[in-house]
Formats: sequence, structure tokens, C-alpha cells
Amino acid sequence: MRVSELVDVSGIPLATIKYYLREGLLMPGDATSATQSTYGDKHVRRLALIRALVDVVGLSVQKTREVLRLIDAPEPDLFETLGRAVALLPPYLDEPADDYPRARAVLTTIGQIYDPRYAAVGQLERALEAAEAAGIPMTGERLRGYAEHVMGIAEIDISSVPTGSAANAVEYSVLGTAIYEPVLAAMRRLAHQDLASKRLAARSTEATG
Amino acid sequence: MRVSELVDVSGIPLATIKYYLREGLLMPGDATSATQSTYGDKHVRRLALIRALVDVVGLSVQKTREVLRLIDAPEPDLFETLGRAVALLPPYLDEPADDYPRARAVLTTIGQIYDPRYAAVGQLERALEAAEAAGIPMTGERLRGYAEHVMGIAEIDISSVPTGSAANAVEYSVLGTAIYEPVLAAMRRLAHQDLASKRLAARSTEATG
Repeated sequence: MRVSELVDVSGIPLATIKYYLREGLLMPGDATSATQSTYGDKHVRRLALIRALVDVVGLSVQKTREVLRLIDAPEPDLFETLGRAVALLPPYLDEPADDYPRARAVLTTIGQIYDPRYAAVGQLERALEAAEAAGIPMTGERLRGYAEHVMGIAEIDISSVPTGSAANAVEYSVLGTAIYEPVLAAMRRLAHQDLASKRLAARSTEATG
Repeated sequence: MRVSELVDVSGIPLATIKYYLREGLLMPGDATSATQSTYGDKHVRRLALIRALVDVVGLSVQKTREVLRLIDAPEPDLFETLGRAVALLPPYLDEPADDYPRARAVLTTIGQIYDPRYAAVGQLERALEAAEAAGIPMTGERLRGYAEHVMGIAEIDISSVPTGSAANAVEYSVLGTAIYEPVLAAMRRLAHQDLASKRLAARSTEATG
């Protein structure tokens, strides 16, 4: 198809498509003349993925380019590739450290590998610091309870990762990690309200009963 | 204590303390002369709370003021007060709607009350829309699995809410809702890596074994 049809099919304006081509996010079409190229399904699929990463997940063009590179040319080690791809998601740490003592203590307690090179280890450290700074540090009891349920959620996530190709696994892992976080956060807030409404209703019944 | 001692005890610069006083976040001290006031423990505690809300949670001064108002003067209905306080946390919706069909379907499926006035209902709607837009809509299976574990997490949270006073319950609910979200997000990413490392290691052992 011509670029004008790609605009119609994808719903993405021509200027944006040209920008993605210039920035190396969208692969070039097949040149049919000095000024025209032809595009196919892979361009439509790629535009949908760029849209998801840029507009829905909120990645910068630079980070999006790095994710797409890992999708197009995964490292031989899939675990390494997945780790590098997911590490491109926010939150970003200002300065990586060699050691994250709070995260180390937490991971040791819940029996998971501590590797400070994982981006999420630094993210956990910062989140634990914030809890301390706010005067509500994580307790061991809360930690063990959280860890059990979080592992249950992660099992669901991992069982949904497509196993056909490394490219699909990387794409799904990046999107699923980012996209379901706000779903889970909203569900947690609603579960709080569900529980609070029942408990406070029970308490006011006791008080008046 | 004098304001200079409040600076020392709290570690917050004088200019910032004066700003919080002007903005009505910090209650005035007891005036001892036309130009001097004396401050006490309640000011130290309030400064720590302001710091947590502004610097750690990242609330605007306006939202912080509204949270503090609900802490200082809770509504007679505690459930209502908690809902209003937690609704001051991000993410904020551009325009509240009368109905959120995706969130309604989800809450019906998992057997929770659907009330579009709850801020988290609009947040869930937006998160579900984003999942659709990214091409990975929530499936019923994922939803039910998530809901079970999220309810387990919420039970832990609710059991930690102090029951002594409405003020303490409001303060804890706002901080705990916001502060543990990034902890849970980082823990989920690390659980993914823990599971993926085991599965991919198992697979490569099969391949070479």
C-alpha cells in the first residue's frame, strides 16, 4: 500500500508516520521510485506497537527505539533480552548503585535472587526508602503477605507470555508489565473500598444494634 | 520551641516552613509577641506529614491542603472521608463521567460494588482502556486471578489501618495507598524475573540435556 493508505489503515497522521520513519522507529517501505515507497502489514503492526509504547505506555522516542531494537534483534539469551527490555520502562533511577541494601534484605527474606543489575531492584530500593521517609516502613509481616500474592499475580502474567518467538515474548513482556500496573493499582484501591465499606457498615451496625 | 528550633528538629529550611504557614498547610504557632510564635510537637508531626505528602507522594500544595483538611476535620461518615481523601491521590481524570462501562463489567464479574463516584472506578476504566489500546485487553481469566490476589493484598492493608481516631485512619490510608503502590509494582517485576529465570533455565537444561 502507499503511505496515504497506511495513514488511513493505521489512523496515524502522515506527519507522525514520517517522524517515526525519520527517527528509525518505523522500518522503511520498499522503494518503488525515488520518491515513493510501498508498505505492508508489518508496517501496520509496527505502527500499532509504536503507538502503544509511545502513547499508552508513555515511553520517550529514544526508549521506544531501544525496545524495538530488542524486539527486532533479541540477544541470544532470552532472559537477558527480557530484562533489558523491561528495564527501559519507568521509573528511572538517577544514579544506579552497586548495592541496594533495603531491596537486598527484602529479597533475601522472601527467598528471591538479589541481583543489583536488575532495574527493578533499584526501583524497589527507592520505593522502600519512600515508605521509610513517609513513616510507614515495610514490616516483615506485610512483606511476606505481599510477596505471596504478588507471586500469584506474576504467575498469571508469566503464563500469558507467548512462547512462539523471542520478538513476541519481548513485546508482550514490555507491554504487559507497564499496562497492567495501573489496572492492579486501581483494583487495589477498589478492594480497599469494598473491604472498608463492609467493615465500617458492620461497625455502625454494632454501634446502633 | 522557637521557629529556628523547629528548623533544626524538622530539618526543613525556614523559607519552606514559612511557605507552609502562608499556604495554610502548617498550623500557626502560639503568638508570644507581635513577631514571635512558639511551636510544639504537633508542628513537628505536621511537618513530617506535609513532607511525606508533598515530597514522597508528590501531591501538589492544593491537594495536600485538602488531605490535611480531611485529617483535621473528618466528615461524620468515616467511609466517606476516607474515599474523599484517597481520591486526592493521582492519577487524575480529565473529566469525570457518569458511567464507566469497562470498570462496571469488571466489578460485576468480581462481585464488588460499582459506584462511579469512587475515583478509583474512573482510574480503572482508564487503565482498562489503555490495555485495549495496547492490544492486550484484560481477559476474564486474568481478571479473576488478579482480583483474588489483589483482595489478599487489600486485606493486609486494611488490617493495618489504625482504628484509634479518624484522623489517624485518614492519614494512614492516604500514605499507605500511595506509598505501597510502587513497592508492589517493583515486587511484581522482580517476581517476573524470578519466575522467568527458573523457567528459561529449565528450558535450556531440557534443550542441552
